[in-house]
Amino acid sequence: MVEETIYFGRFISAPQPDELLIRTGAVLVNRNDGKGVIKKADWTVTSSSDAASKFGVEAPVVVAKDSGFFFPGFIDTHIHAPQHPNVGIFGKSTLLDWLTTYTFPLESSLGNVNSPMYKDAVSPPDPLARAKAVYNRVISRTLANGTTTASYYATIHVDATNLLADITFARGQRAYIGRVCMDRPEMCPDYYRDESTEQTIANTKASIAHCKSLDASGELVAHIVTPRFAPSCLPQTLTQLGELAKEEGLRIQTHISENLNEVKLVKELFPDQSSYADVYDHHGLLTPKTILAHAVHLSKEEMRLVKAKKSKISHCPNSNSALGSGLCPVRELLDEGIEVGLGTDVSGGYSASILDAVRNACIVSRHVGFLHDGDSRYNVGVAEGLWLATMGGAKVVGMEGRLGGFEEGMLWDVQEIALGEVESDGQGEDLEVDIFGWESWENRVAKWVWNGDDRNVRRVWVGGRLVHETR
Amino acid sequence: MVEETIYFGRFISAPQPDELLIRTGAVLVNRNDGKGVIKKADWTVTSSSDAASKFGVEAPVVVAKDSGFFFPGFIDTHIHAPQHPNVGIFGKSTLLDWLTTYTFPLESSLGNVNSPMYKDAVSPPDPLARAKAVYNRVISRTLANGTTTASYYATIHVDATNLLADITFARGQRAYIGRVCMDRPEMCPDYYRDESTEQTIANTKASIAHCKSLDASGELVAHIVTPRFAPSCLPQTLTQLGELAKEEGLRIQTHISENLNEVKLVKELFPDQSSYADVYDHHGLLTPKTILAHAVHLSKEEMRLVKAKKSKISHCPNSNSALGSGLCPVRELLDEGIEVGLGTDVSGGYSASILDAVRNACIVSRHVGFLHDGDSRYNVGVAEGLWLATMGGAKVVGMEGRLGGFEEGMLWDVQEIALGEVESDGQGEDLEVDIFGWESWENRVAKWVWNGDDRNVRRVWVGGRLVHETR
Repeated sequence: MVEETIYFGRFISAPQPDELLIRTGAVLVNRNDGKGVIKKADWTVTSSSDAASKFGVEAPVVVAKDSGFFFPGFIDTHIHAPQHPNVGIFGKSTLLDWLTTYTFPLESSLGNVNSPMYKDAVSPPDPLARAKAVYNRVISRTLANGTTTASYYATIHVDATNLLADITFARGQRAYIGRVCMDRPEMCPDYYRDESTEQTIANTKASIAHCKSLDASGELVAHIVTPRFAPSCLPQTLTQLGELAKEEGLRIQTHISENLNEVKLVKELFPDQSSYADVYDHHGLLTPKTILAHAVHLSKEEMRLVKAKKSKISHCPNSNSALGSGLCPVRELLDEGIEVGLGTDVSGGYSASILDAVRNACIVSRHVGFLHDGDSRYNVGVAEGLWLATMGGAKVVGMEGRLGGFEEGMLWDVQEIALGEVESDGQGEDLEVDIFGWESWENRVAKWVWNGDDRNVRRVWVGGRLVHETR
Repeated sequence: MVEETIYFGRFISAPQPDELLIRTGAVLVNRNDGKGVIKKADWTVTSSSDAASKFGVEAPVVVAKDSGFFFPGFIDTHIHAPQHPNVGIFGKSTLLDWLTTYTFPLESSLGNVNSPMYKDAVSPPDPLARAKAVYNRVISRTLANGTTTASYYATIHVDATNLLADITFARGQRAYIGRVCMDRPEMCPDYYRDESTEQTIANTKASIAHCKSLDASGELVAHIVTPRFAPSCLPQTLTQLGELAKEEGLRIQTHISENLNEVKLVKELFPDQSSYADVYDHHGLLTPKTILAHAVHLSKEEMRLVKAKKSKISHCPNSNSALGSGLCPVRELLDEGIEVGLGTDVSGGYSASILDAVRNACIVSRHVGFLHDGDSRYNVGVAEGLWLATMGGAKVVGMEGRLGGFEEGMLWDVQEIALGEVESDGQGEDLEVDIFGWESWENRVAKWVWNGDDRNVRRVWVGGRLVHETR
């Protein structure tokens, strides 16, 4: 049965880094293939009642609030789902001590009754029950914040990782699911690591099979091969994971050059490779399907290698600031021709909101300018931040041309944004973002970016399916 | 009639820069003098029903949610009330062009029918009606975010400034109200400046008189003498404003060293003074009652002058990042012994939330460290950020010992914070901050600081009066 829906209202998107495209009209979305693709767009439609006759169909019409607009769903190119309970908990730590102090204990508790988090447990721990609560919660948070596609790191546990796949699939979020690989004994705690390369590969294959059983097409949920980062994996594991990704045609995600001590550690652990990027390249992990998170401290030579290999970068400004990792020079990465998207990096990042990542990308770019005598050419503005969050992210997750806009043939992965309207007496809706009525639409978008939150996300669709609605 | 109220529950405060004080118990607040002061505190009370008998009184008991706590109200030491509609609207501008492009047009529209903002008006503009809407809205926002005391800049207009005083007074927020002084012709637009020193002084006196008519004690609302910043005032105006503040015993607020081009401009306009700080000192404006906003680029010599004169500094990290002003070295200011509080600096800052200022103070301090080879001694952590927002702010606004804590004799200027509780299935309350139940209270506070917003502010009191409650 053909299922069609018309969406009418204001449509805003960021098709180019310095362009906000603001249109009113209607689009016809066809769900008969179960995928929710935009069949037609008509920017001459001026009323919801005319939309159906313009398209020559009978279909329900979904209307965006006049004070709001449709916007492409956000793409979170780097998020650790199991770490959600730790958002904001990092003290004054930096990457390597943060991992051992906060992160490994929490991650292990989603699959291991012997996790340090259970040392004072009064009743027998149920790690999978914890995983269920955490994963349902983080997906509620990301959907509520307009994230329609996320590239998740899970934990090393097959069961809990498969549960994350089940939950994203059931709730309709587009997701890459990564079982985390870490098996280098001296770099991983005894309570939280794969026992050997063989186990790493076998467990990864089990997760791959599970994702395929849910969605053979890999369009809504797909496994992503996930060596945590170079130091955490045995060299032969890195190599075999690269081979596995190639055989299976899967994407790869890992971390690179987040923190200077980490860069030093990689140099010590891999003395034969010339750089951090070279370590990944040497082990067959630097591919056009690879997402590298952070890239704060890459040399120019490494940038050129990443560019030559067509690997992608996930910029996580919130996390880089919170953990004191450094100021990622996004402008330089873009100028090198590298494809960049945004990541929340929960819980190195303290927020599951990609809108927050847009804000922090703008702020960090200003701070990068401070390192260059206040040079404004490093600035990322609102439109460019939104472009990174949508079109940039689409390229990073391999969905360029299918996500990030409202053109015909694109998937209906969309959020409806509502802004608050202030009345003449100063009363107003209980929404973030106060609109007084005289602001241009460009300025309303700026106000949304700088002040908006999940209260402004009224409805969210993935592949035409309504997956979130505010109460 | 004596009016007493007991507050029972968890009380958290930051009495020292590196100390979170977490107590349960009860306090008795006496409002018979109309001021709402803590008469007694008892940290041995363990149930709400025992509280009254412990104090030997009959009084209603207000109980904080078990998942939450009482926290001292925030003090916003620098906020421009009329600029609230422009939050998030700054593009890629920096201070001086931001003022002329965005700020002067908006501010002028609150009192001047010839404001550029009305050039396309179809009906006759009503500036005071606009002021009423804007001021009611910004006070709703600050109260909802737990700001119990604010030091406001208004506009140059006496009527609109007095209206701001009326509204804060009626709604019960503790406020300093500054009529903005700017009369140097070549530095101010024709449509938005006082005509002469005489007019500046006369209009300021009119606002002083109005504030006194509302509150002769100056405890809830008081005028604060407000030369916008050195470049905007004639030199004799600066001098006369300093004299007026001294005669009237009033506080002073202005801006200092926010942006490098501004610093250069001050040097050009005041060639006989050795520094920006010296300009204020020379004109009698550097006093123990002076609040200097920003102080991003002070020399060591200027810091010592500020310290010697016991003037205070309002640190506005959000604004400094948004407008690309620079990274304020808060640690150096504190090490010099200068008293520092936090400001939102709406709308250079894009948020009316002091909790956001706490977050940004932490982040900016990390970035300052990046300028010093990643030195962690520059770090401001959660407890210190909260201390700046409460105890630090109390010193800056001259209320040390009366605001910022729960000791006997302190004013009941308090916010009740509620955190979200996640259920075992991952469902949870529609509140920011997900508490899973295993977190320590220190970590819950960290989660609140990094993820909280106005939804977590359940109730707000000023001087014992309930001035905000979430629906």
